[in-house]
Amino acid sequence: MSIITLTTDYGLKDHFVGALKGKILSEYSEASIIDISHDIDPFNTVEASYIIGASYASFPKGTVHLIGVDMESNKENQHIVMQWNDHYFIAADNGILSMLSQKIVPQKMVAINIHDRLHNEATDLDVFVKVACHIAKGGLMNVIGKEINSIKQVTDLQATIALDGNSLKGHVIYIDHFGNVVTNITKKYFIEVAKGRPYEIVLKTKNIKTILPNYSAIASSDKYPIKYYEGEKLAIFNEAGFLEIAIFRSNPSKVGSANSLLGLNYRDIITIKFI
Amino acid sequence: MSIITLTTDYGLKDHFVGALKGKILSEYSEASIIDISHDIDPFNTVEASYIIGASYASFPKGTVHLIGVDMESNKENQHIVMQWNDHYFIAADNGILSMLSQKIVPQKMVAINIHDRLHNEATDLDVFVKVACHIAKGGLMNVIGKEINSIKQVTDLQATIALDGNSLKGHVIYIDHFGNVVTNITKKYFIEVAKGRPYEIVLKTKNIKTILPNYSAIASSDKYPIKYYEGEKLAIFNEAGFLEIAIFRSNPSKVGSANSLLGLNYRDIITIKFI
Amino acid sequence: MSIITLTTDYGLKDHFVGALKGKILSEYSEASIIDISHDIDPFNTVEASYIIGASYASFPKGTVHLIGVDMESNKENQHIVMQWNDHYFIAADNGILSMLSQKIVPQKMVAINIHDRLHNEATDLDVFVKVACHIAKGGLMNVIGKEINSIKQVTDLQATIALDGNSLKGHVIYIDHFGNVVTNITKKYFIEVAKGRPYEIVLKTKNIKTILPNYSAIASSDKYPIKYYEGEKLAIFNEAGFLEIAIFRSNPSKVGSANSLLGLNYRDIITIKFI
Repeated sequence: MSIITLTTDYGLKDHFVGALKGKILSEYSEASIIDISHDIDPFNTVEASYIIGASYASFPKGTVHLIGVDMESNKENQHIVMQWNDHYFIAADNGILSMLSQKIVPQKMVAINIHDRLHNEATDLDVFVKVACHIAKGGLMNVIGKEINSIKQVTDLQATIALDGNSLKGHVIYIDHFGNVVTNITKKYFIEVAKGRPYEIVLKTKNIKTILPNYSAIASSDKYPIKYYEGEKLAIFNEAGFLEIAIFRSNPSKVGSANSLLGLNYRDIITIKFI
Repeated sequence: MSIITLTTDYGLKDHFVGALKGKILSEYSEASIIDISHDIDPFNTVEASYIIGASYASFPKGTVHLIGVDMESNKENQHIVMQWNDHYFIAADNGILSMLSQKIVPQKMVAINIHDRLHNEATDLDVFVKVACHIAKGGLMNVIGKEINSIKQVTDLQATIALDGNSLKGHVIYIDHFGNVVTNITKKYFIEVAKGRPYEIVLKTKNIKTILPNYSAIASSDKYPIKYYEGEKLAIFNEAGFLEIAIFRSNPSKVGSANSLLGLNYRDIITIKFI
Repeated sequence: MSIITLTTDYGLKDHFVGALKGKILSEYSEASIIDISHDIDPFNTVEASYIIGASYASFPKGTVHLIGVDMESNKENQHIVMQWNDHYFIAADNGILSMLSQKIVPQKMVAINIHDRLHNEATDLDVFVKVACHIAKGGLMNVIGKEINSIKQVTDLQATIALDGNSLKGHVIYIDHFGNVVTNITKKYFIEVAKGRPYEIVLKTKNIKTILPNYSAIASSDKYPIKYYEGEKLAIFNEAGFLEIAIFRSNPSKVGSANSLLGLNYRDIITIKFI
């Protein structure tokens, strides 16, 4: 059994995701198809990057990840397959995969060249399905593409250190279902830069001085029940390794969230000062 | 492995879809169950028709399609199974399947008559599960129903030609996740009527004079990057073969969509004038 | 093939549900994973209780139900597994499972104690995955936990009889996708208390005097088409056995629902008077 994961901005109301699965099963009936997300913000390649980067490692090596976000092949974006960290990623070369390739060198990359081999009415999605099934069955990348050495790099949202080395600047790259705010500051990068110094995460409201090991750690005193701490703001490194600003037990539709309460929005700057 | 697809208006918050899958697996543990959509507008049989018509062909022949929209059996709507184009459709006879049967003659239709054979507390859904599993296992339609020759016809939303033959009138039958507007004017019908004549799709704002082969074709000039064209309106025949009015790279929650920007709503009339 | 069901408040936008499935398949590749709901209101244990109680019986005996709602292990809530009615439930001991255990005595309960046996970075979710796969493969509960005799009881939302025995008071515990309002008054309890007496369900608008066998039964007269009855309020015992106040063929975004039209909200009191 090979796993093919799906990450798209198709939404779940339309038939697109179901039809995509039907096409995969028509081509490869034993495929195990797992949805990662179909609610990526339309055409938002930064969100797609974050989601795929945060989830791929939960799957076994050899998994094929099909990414249907801004995937129309056009004069700027060709279709590519990247073998990276023993996983396979199929996407348009629109920057989505560069967040991965900037961290670890890809094992192999090809530009897909089977478009002319498919039937006349074949869509871009048909191309992705064909390629995903080929790889999932254990087929070689060279059969469906021509090797390439580089892909499009997107660098506008990278965490950076101030010239004096005393602060670290990141960005909000994702706001999750609970309204918690994910930044592009990784635990690894933070530790490297912090070198054990005390720090403050600068917020419009009161700064945060401690990054907790998990959400419940906010309930620090045994004097109060956990319920007492609901609504408090906190920071953790989330399971994907990124700094996250959260509201303890937040419910966006009721008590508000880090996003709504702290005024933190997609692409906003987050600064950590060392002292 | 047999595939059973699900198209319902149950939504994904409640347990109904999960329970439905549990019932299918209890009856037929090898079934491969694929969701087409569970976000059909409640009781909207036109939407259900469009979604099932647009997606069934992506699945292998022999697939069983269970349609849980307005499915309560009552004095007006009996439960039916239709074998059509080598696929099987289980629905209430409320017009949903007539959009298919008007295009191609069904191979066989039966009115389900097993209601009395199930346990006392059996619901309409239990009936559908029993029938879907029976057919998916390769069982005969006659075992679970009585052959019928006709089903309820719904014709209020059909595309028509003007008396003088110089224009074609269709309706908005679906608004998709991107806010793009799908009409009931098929590519096949358009070609038949147009006979190669130039045409204009009449809109409240500027008319559209060309139906493009795909979304990215709107970026016609090499002088500008694709980003330059975001927000432009365009028309294509979508993958299901229907005329679609779209906004290039639309994001309903940010820049607006064909639905919001062009004032096109469900059931609105769309006219194509030939000149 | 063993079934593992998932009930969480993770939502479907984020990668959490996909990652959870990847972890399960990494541990146990033959698992059949079925979503019950991922749209439980965040941290709402009453909703989670209702959903799991209403759906578990649709699955085969031996099914493992993983409940990811308010699941962080902390000083108040330990992780537990409950074998009940031949199904297995994995949750934090936060009251979710007490709605089940109050009806039927559990077969066995353990407090999970494998936390120290997992790798350093293991999250609470990793613990649940490990336990779910262990049980789904047929492993013993004693291997992953220590037997316990009681779990946390939540009783604030129970249906009760008035002192004079002439009325029954319940609460709204769930509002479904159609805006129908589910109470915690079960058919079994109602029959016991009613003893055949006539009754009225007291509402802010006109009372309801009959609980119908199904939705369509509201269309009582052959003189009118079913369409005529759309928008009428009614009461039924739903498929899960709970009293539900509904609007016939309601569409929350168009004509309103029991929730919006009758002013019935989560935790509101519903009274049945016997006369």
